[in-house]
Amino acid sequence: MKPVNIGIVGLGTVGSGTFNVLNRNAEDITRRAGRAIQVTHVGARRDNPAADTSGVTVSRDVTEVISDPAVDIVVELIGGVTLAKELVLGSIAAGKHVVTANKALIAEHGNEIFAAAQAKGVNVAFEAAVAGGIPIIKAIREGLSANQIQWVAGIINGTGNFILTEMKEKGRAFDDALAEAQALGYAEADPTFDVEGIDAAHKLTILASVAFGIPLQFEKAYTEGISKITAEDVRYADELGYSIKHLGITRKTSAGVELRVHPTLIHNSRLLANVNGVMNAVMAMSDAVGPTLYYGPGAGAEPTASSVVADIVDVARALTTDPDNRVPHLAFHADTLSDTPILPIDQITTAYYLRLKAKDTPGVMAKIATILSDSGINIESLLQKEVEVDHGQVPIIMITREVKESRMNDALKKLEAEDDVVGSVMRIRLEQLDG
Amino acid sequence: MKPVNIGIVGLGTVGSGTFNVLNRNAEDITRRAGRAIQVTHVGARRDNPAADTSGVTVSRDVTEVISDPAVDIVVELIGGVTLAKELVLGSIAAGKHVVTANKALIAEHGNEIFAAAQAKGVNVAFEAAVAGGIPIIKAIREGLSANQIQWVAGIINGTGNFILTEMKEKGRAFDDALAEAQALGYAEADPTFDVEGIDAAHKLTILASVAFGIPLQFEKAYTEGISKITAEDVRYADELGYSIKHLGITRKTSAGVELRVHPTLIHNSRLLANVNGVMNAVMAMSDAVGPTLYYGPGAGAEPTASSVVADIVDVARALTTDPDNRVPHLAFHADTLSDTPILPIDQITTAYYLRLKAKDTPGVMAKIATILSDSGINIESLLQKEVEVDHGQVPIIMITREVKESRMNDALKKLEAEDDVVGSVMRIRLEQLDG
Repeated sequence: MKPVNIGIVGLGTVGSGTFNVLNRNAEDITRRAGRAIQVTHVGARRDNPAADTSGVTVSRDVTEVISDPAVDIVVELIGGVTLAKELVLGSIAAGKHVVTANKALIAEHGNEIFAAAQAKGVNVAFEAAVAGGIPIIKAIREGLSANQIQWVAGIINGTGNFILTEMKEKGRAFDDALAEAQALGYAEADPTFDVEGIDAAHKLTILASVAFGIPLQFEKAYTEGISKITAEDVRYADELGYSIKHLGITRKTSAGVELRVHPTLIHNSRLLANVNGVMNAVMAMSDAVGPTLYYGPGAGAEPTASSVVADIVDVARALTTDPDNRVPHLAFHADTLSDTPILPIDQITTAYYLRLKAKDTPGVMAKIATILSDSGINIESLLQKEVEVDHGQVPIIMITREVKESRMNDALKKLEAEDDVVGSVMRIRLEQLDG
Repeated sequence: MKPVNIGIVGLGTVGSGTFNVLNRNAEDITRRAGRAIQVTHVGARRDNPAADTSGVTVSRDVTEVISDPAVDIVVELIGGVTLAKELVLGSIAAGKHVVTANKALIAEHGNEIFAAAQAKGVNVAFEAAVAGGIPIIKAIREGLSANQIQWVAGIINGTGNFILTEMKEKGRAFDDALAEAQALGYAEADPTFDVEGIDAAHKLTILASVAFGIPLQFEKAYTEGISKITAEDVRYADELGYSIKHLGITRKTSAGVELRVHPTLIHNSRLLANVNGVMNAVMAMSDAVGPTLYYGPGAGAEPTASSVVADIVDVARALTTDPDNRVPHLAFHADTLSDTPILPIDQITTAYYLRLKAKDTPGVMAKIATILSDSGINIESLLQKEVEVDHGQVPIIMITREVKESRMNDALKKLEAEDDVVGSVMRIRLEQLDG
């Protein structure tokens, strides 16, 4: 079969990684794909010493890759959403297949992009957009195609997981662990995108769509970061048998789809609680298979390139497929996507970890328990740190049973209005993730 | 697109599970596949109350499914290798695609079956043959297609993992844990197939072929069971920070391919060491992505059906693909399979756990250390249980550095010939599984 010609746009970390993997493993990739897959054109505003492009056409004007008639598949690795969107839509208009690692682009503009691709009969593949080197899109979209998926929960930001792992293993404060992540190159100088959960929300938005067959709805994702988690929360959680992880969770209920990124207590006996450092993992619960979990590196040049190249091989195979009989972009055929609503965060149901400071007076615990009980909230377990009395205040840590968040919000208002409760109540959601 | 007609041969546990999943989730499966997938013919020697086949043609002579011209895909769930092989080859000869969950059939006769399928231009899909509901064949064959895979290690027999988990968590003896597994229906009355590693070797044989692009060579797999593991081995391993798991390991080295199933110590900090009960998990180490791990239920009606149905959807999509441009059966195109030799077990290199009883005499440890040292074997850590002196004998437990197994065998002979060493030495391999 004739070789497939690849045009790579963007020669940064992932671009050079993709270039190098395609070259280094050309023989094995050809044995698998049944045809050579060769990079014939690179669009990059500057050279990258990590990739030796000698012998390959290099254009400083990246749009030349798209207009190159010899290029079969355009690999968009330029990042951002503005130029990247133009390039992807331009490639589709030119009848070229696209592979991208761009989670923001897919989460925010994927509906438009996939519609354009379908109209043109081309594929847009995006395995590398979620959880780096883990083949999670393939697993959910194809591996679980027999199932009604019930929920997907994942550690899908390595920076945040590194920080929380450092906090747990070394008792460090958030700022201190963040500084370490920055020193090691895991976190950007401005870490907002990672630690406030925006990056994870992009990925979760994509996971929700392929799991449930709903359009991409990034703007409806609830996003809460980890920057307010304290070393004492991490320690108290551990005393109760839990780890705090920054999870993306999407769950289909009879009322709608939950779509939320936030710090989450997970029992230490769960595999997800034991995914440490920069590693990612995604767990899916489905009606036929039950729980499955997928683990691996969520970022980095070659892990991400691994997914980009897997997509390239898939697209190369799809070149001879009836376009109507391919794996649909969002797992379900476009005309069957569901309008199931995304639930506002106050409509989700979950358990909670609560930490508050109370005056060390008789009956204070009874008052607190009564407020919760009057709101229909049951306490599952309790830590009262009498030994930590400080200025007449004692920390109280509770884990509640599951309750609707709006009800919890009401109870928190009442608790914070109570004279014997000092300051605000720390509230972290807790998930069982049974299985 | 017109519906795809499925013929199911065998209506036992997996057959009825497949029938039920296809019916229950018909709507979601159709939304994904873009066409209805309907069971039109069942071949079963008897009814199964777990599956309501009213409205479907049921043949007592299962060969009638194959000769039914309306059937597009034959799903072989009859088990065994004799009739199953006839049915699969017969289906291929009739130009029908095949989906099977039969690990023994693929591991022992897959080369012949795939050659026949390729000659006819049909697909034989076998995701359910390895690790039940985990989409591991898809992950390795497609998700990791960019990579040179270095090794694959897995807990791929749920019965054995249940027994070892019981032994660890409850301090039970092997026989006791096996009886529990039998009482719960996890183990057969004759448990040989599971506990002696034959089932795992079938699965590992398949994993090795899709990882490394080599023909199926079940007859060359090294197989060692878990029935000789004692409660004290489990306890000593735990004291040293390890769990004992029944692993299938295949590794590509410069000398050849290791293909081995045996009890294995794994450090407790590894995710694989924390895969408990009947759950399965497979870890792959690859040059681009690094470590990835896949976890889920390895058996059961609906978990296995999940993989069978995923294969059906894949095959339904492949109906309109150029046969030369499909995912190859063994991941690499048949004419590029490699003749890399399978290494005999004495040529593998690994670390070891050793347990022996020595006479409680001065200098005995020095003698043992000298024998090992003279064989070029370094001791990594040591437990000498002085408190457990029994009839003047003391247990000595060691973990060695990596060494070639032939060298270890020589050292064990010398140790066992030593007057101060009582009886034989217990030897369990230990793997780092870095990542």
